[in-house]
Amino acid sequence: MKTLKFNIIAVLTACLAGLLTYTASAQFQQNPIVSPEIHENGSVTFRLMAQAADTVRISGNWMAGWGAAEIMTKNEDGLWEITLHGLVPDYYNYVYRVDGVRTTDPSNPWVIRDVRNTFSAFILPGEESRFLSLGNGKQGTIHEVWYPSPVLDMEQRRMKVYLPPGYHENGDSYPVLYLLHGGGGDEEAWTELGLANRILDNLIHSGETNPMIVVMTNGNPNQSSTWHVNPGHEAPRQTDSVNPMANIRFEESLVRDVIPFVESRYRVKTGKENRAVTGLSMGGWQTQQLALAYPEVFDYYGVMSMGLIRASQFGMDAEEHLERTRQNLRNLQETGYKLYWVACGTDDFLFDSVIHFREVLDELGFDYVYRETGGGHTWDIWRQYLSEFTPMIFR
Amino acid sequence: MKTLKFNIIAVLTACLAGLLTYTASAQFQQNPIVSPEIHENGSVTFRLMAQAADTVRISGNWMAGWGAAEIMTKNEDGLWEITLHGLVPDYYNYVYRVDGVRTTDPSNPWVIRDVRNTFSAFILPGEESRFLSLGNGKQGTIHEVWYPSPVLDMEQRRMKVYLPPGYHENGDSYPVLYLLHGGGGDEEAWTELGLANRILDNLIHSGETNPMIVVMTNGNPNQSSTWHVNPGHEAPRQTDSVNPMANIRFEESLVRDVIPFVESRYRVKTGKENRAVTGLSMGGWQTQQLALAYPEVFDYYGVMSMGLIRASQFGMDAEEHLERTRQNLRNLQETGYKLYWVACGTDDFLFDSVIHFREVLDELGFDYVYRETGGGHTWDIWRQYLSEFTPMIFR
Repeated sequence: MKTLKFNIIAVLTACLAGLLTYTASAQFQQNPIVSPEIHENGSVTFRLMAQAADTVRISGNWMAGWGAAEIMTKNEDGLWEITLHGLVPDYYNYVYRVDGVRTTDPSNPWVIRDVRNTFSAFILPGEESRFLSLGNGKQGTIHEVWYPSPVLDMEQRRMKVYLPPGYHENGDSYPVLYLLHGGGGDEEAWTELGLANRILDNLIHSGETNPMIVVMTNGNPNQSSTWHVNPGHEAPRQTDSVNPMANIRFEESLVRDVIPFVESRYRVKTGKENRAVTGLSMGGWQTQQLALAYPEVFDYYGVMSMGLIRASQFGMDAEEHLERTRQNLRNLQETGYKLYWVACGTDDFLFDSVIHFREVLDELGFDYVYRETGGGHTWDIWRQYLSEFTPMIFR
Repeated sequence: MKTLKFNIIAVLTACLAGLLTYTASAQFQQNPIVSPEIHENGSVTFRLMAQAADTVRISGNWMAGWGAAEIMTKNEDGLWEITLHGLVPDYYNYVYRVDGVRTTDPSNPWVIRDVRNTFSAFILPGEESRFLSLGNGKQGTIHEVWYPSPVLDMEQRRMKVYLPPGYHENGDSYPVLYLLHGGGGDEEAWTELGLANRILDNLIHSGETNPMIVVMTNGNPNQSSTWHVNPGHEAPRQTDSVNPMANIRFEESLVRDVIPFVESRYRVKTGKENRAVTGLSMGGWQTQQLALAYPEVFDYYGVMSMGLIRASQFGMDAEEHLERTRQNLRNLQETGYKLYWVACGTDDFLFDSVIHFREVLDELGFDYVYRETGGGHTWDIWRQYLSEFTPMIFR
């Protein structure tokens, strides 16, 4: 009887499938245009149907800055197209500019957000992007968690927590990396733009990185969560996200709210030797401040794409200010730590601030590891830094 | 000394904040246009700068189908605008059509995906959308989990699991709702488009719904996860997602792979009285098949926007097919269940199939609850159904 039952279901569903396909196609107005199309030789074709447009350009994060663009070619049907060759395998994003109007690719369902802007996304597979692909190993788990923040006077704040593969299958406790985003970002940035969970899965699988828990907080102390989770609130402007750098309320909250919560909720190894913190740009700044204000909390620091600005540029008493920084750095030297890592790209607009920072560190004989790369203030670099930083910690 | 330390940080960061704001604005080319703008009286203004465009239209899910559109008005600066009045507070999405090119709103950072299409999104706050807002109660936790699926011959498949507020604070065990998406959807659909976690948070807080775990699987047995998590694979076409209805491999996997995994990973009350399943469209079909093939597994069924097609339409022997269905329904009657809920909107393109389904149920004296609403085959209706179904289960 079971066989018969399934037969009838199969016949009925085959018919229904046809009906649904027809109706859903009409309803969703599906577009047969394939874009982006990734060819076997690694070239990528982008397409957009825009019959009435005079000019369609494409801007992508493989270009030098978002002002750059390439003109696409229109065929007789009004289909615009461009094929790019020689892109390094990586996680890319792009937009079209249709007679000056910025638009995501309507044929590409993968749209991501960076600060207030949306982009179409794709991964070009290959050796260089192997850490970004779903590997053969086991995947970790991601939790979207709300935790209380007395320091910031919020009953609930949202964060993401990555648990390594095996967390649920064994009884081990794990060290914790606190992973901080940059200005304009939020608790979604390191998974959506940084693919941090994917990078960790792959590095843990290959044995290059020890299994660890990764905590991704919202570094804007005026926000309880990424704004669209709480849409009664205005989406953040750039200034909202940078203003938090003018105090260390987030840093205090990380130490007094987040760490105790994480260490009570998860199976965590405690003590500074089991805690690392790294962040990019604003998160690099916050990493610096944590080292200065709470030298007893972390043993591993990663400062990505952030240095010290020259106070004199702003008419301040540079020497007085530097003297305070030196005092705190000496304090950290006395307390001790295992790794202080500074990384920056030579094209980064903050590269000069890193040179200045290193001058101060060198002058003090401060023990740190410096990593200089090409590249600018962009996520491809920060993904690379994460893949280099995590193998150095908890060893 | 601590005060001095913070003072210097404050001064330095204030300067750096200015620097970063300037640079980041240039880098990200921020757009000062506000869109959508939600006014205090509940009207909503949409804006798009498109100086060269001849016609800009807006299509939104408040209109009758995606073919519908309203023309926006261009001012002398080339800014197109339209203000809509009288929208019922809800979770909306829309796109622009700029001289025929479909585009998301470049001023709105919130973009969502439905099947292969992307839309700009917003929530209009108000009484009718109160379940969709971040409430005053505690929020639950969402897990993105990979589980093994021997039935589908996959080492890992991805799903989302909602744990109710309090799960981590107390030692209680919970009943489980298995919540299924429709054709073209995946394990992201019920959180991204259905806001299921938000609805549950609010209903649990108000006491209308008992706390429960909600499991959101990927109902396409040929997929291990939503496609962009595994971007080596082609994004699904409509047919890929509907074909799974031609067999019951997903249903078998839910019973043999998912339920044992959930019941071993989480603190779950077991037995059919603690299991419910509901789904929309394809997921409604799968709910029906689960009831017919595994009558001993669930006590609560919710069939949303799906009935039985008339086999005679397709030249099949309608009576023979119906007889099989009747046999299985009688089998379910004998096994017993607590709730069989059927809900559909009168404008749904599958409404006739529901009429037909009810004829069969009535003819058998099958005990079910029928809920007829206005509306069509759309997420506003399915969010409403979820808010009506969950208060009826696990009572």
